[in-house]
Amino acid sequence: MIIMGIDPGIAIVGYAVVKKEGRQLKALDFGTITTKPDLTTPARLKKIYDGLTSLLADFQPEVLVIEKLFFNRNVTTAFTVGQARGVMLLAAEEAGVPVEEYTPLQVKQAVVGYGVAEKRQVQEMVKMLLGLSQRPQPDDAADALAVAICHAHSAQLSGQLLKKGLKL
Amino acid sequence: MIIMGIDPGIAIVGYAVVKKEGRQLKALDFGTITTKPDLTTPARLKKIYDGLTSLLADFQPEVLVIEKLFFNRNVTTAFTVGQARGVMLLAAEEAGVPVEEYTPLQVKQAVVGYGVAEKRQVQEMVKMLLGLSQRPQPDDAADALAVAICHAHSAQLSGQLLKKGLKL
Repeated sequence: MIIMGIDPGIAIVGYAVVKKEGRQLKALDFGTITTKPDLTTPARLKKIYDGLTSLLADFQPEVLVIEKLFFNRNVTTAFTVGQARGVMLLAAEEAGVPVEEYTPLQVKQAVVGYGVAEKRQVQEMVKMLLGLSQRPQPDDAADALAVAICHAHSAQLSGQLLKKGLKL
Repeated sequence: MIIMGIDPGIAIVGYAVVKKEGRQLKALDFGTITTKPDLTTPARLKKIYDGLTSLLADFQPEVLVIEKLFFNRNVTTAFTVGQARGVMLLAAEEAGVPVEEYTPLQVKQAVVGYGVAEKRQVQEMVKMLLGLSQRPQPDDAADALAVAICHAHSAQLSGQLLKKGLKL
């Protein structure tokens, strides 16, 4: 199973492609799509859409996994990230790839084992789980790897439960 | 000049196509793109994107005008409408159509002459300015007509000022 993880944003979108074979996880690719603030918002959205469309075509993932966002305060941030997230969901829909969402708490619990982990701890676990030689960088790509791993673990867990006739 | 106005949303998108010839304004088309809540969000976004792409191809507007949104309270609404707005800006960019934004205050001032107008007053003025036989319905389409008229008046005003060597 190939899983694409996304850390959404307008200036930097983190992406990660993780392959799951049995219990083995492997990072096929990870990085960022970046857009400069001197572009118009529509032009930035098109760059994100085109970049993600191209990644989806290259890796043909079974699922696109994206962090569910919570905004306590900043409505403007919610709106801006919402616009970027909209074109990502569209790219997935056009490629026929279903979208799954996890909260930051779920991601940390799945990767580190508890929900209050620091960013650095998450990155250390991502490094270990994927057998990387160093902590993945930048942060946005590391977050995208973490959300992909979260789905891999959840999919494994629900598969095990299904075998036992249980449902999550 | 052909102007396309948009009232953004996820369940109902209002659209309007207004032609400006000299001081004369004419509604070429107006209506809504609707998406049902039983669809997934990516599927709803695709329906909005496809609908708007098709309208842009049919009418080839010179500009797409969209209301600038302000959210005092509801972050979830900002995020949801942001996602829908993202795919609309993308559709405009892909069609090579520039996007202009106006605040609700600017729209009311341009259409009715003052910023605290009621929805019904705005609709009456829209009806009169476009020579419609009745107030445009539904509200979302009426709002889209109003934002298109706002741009037509702004474009006219800045044209007049330019002739006089002034800038807005």
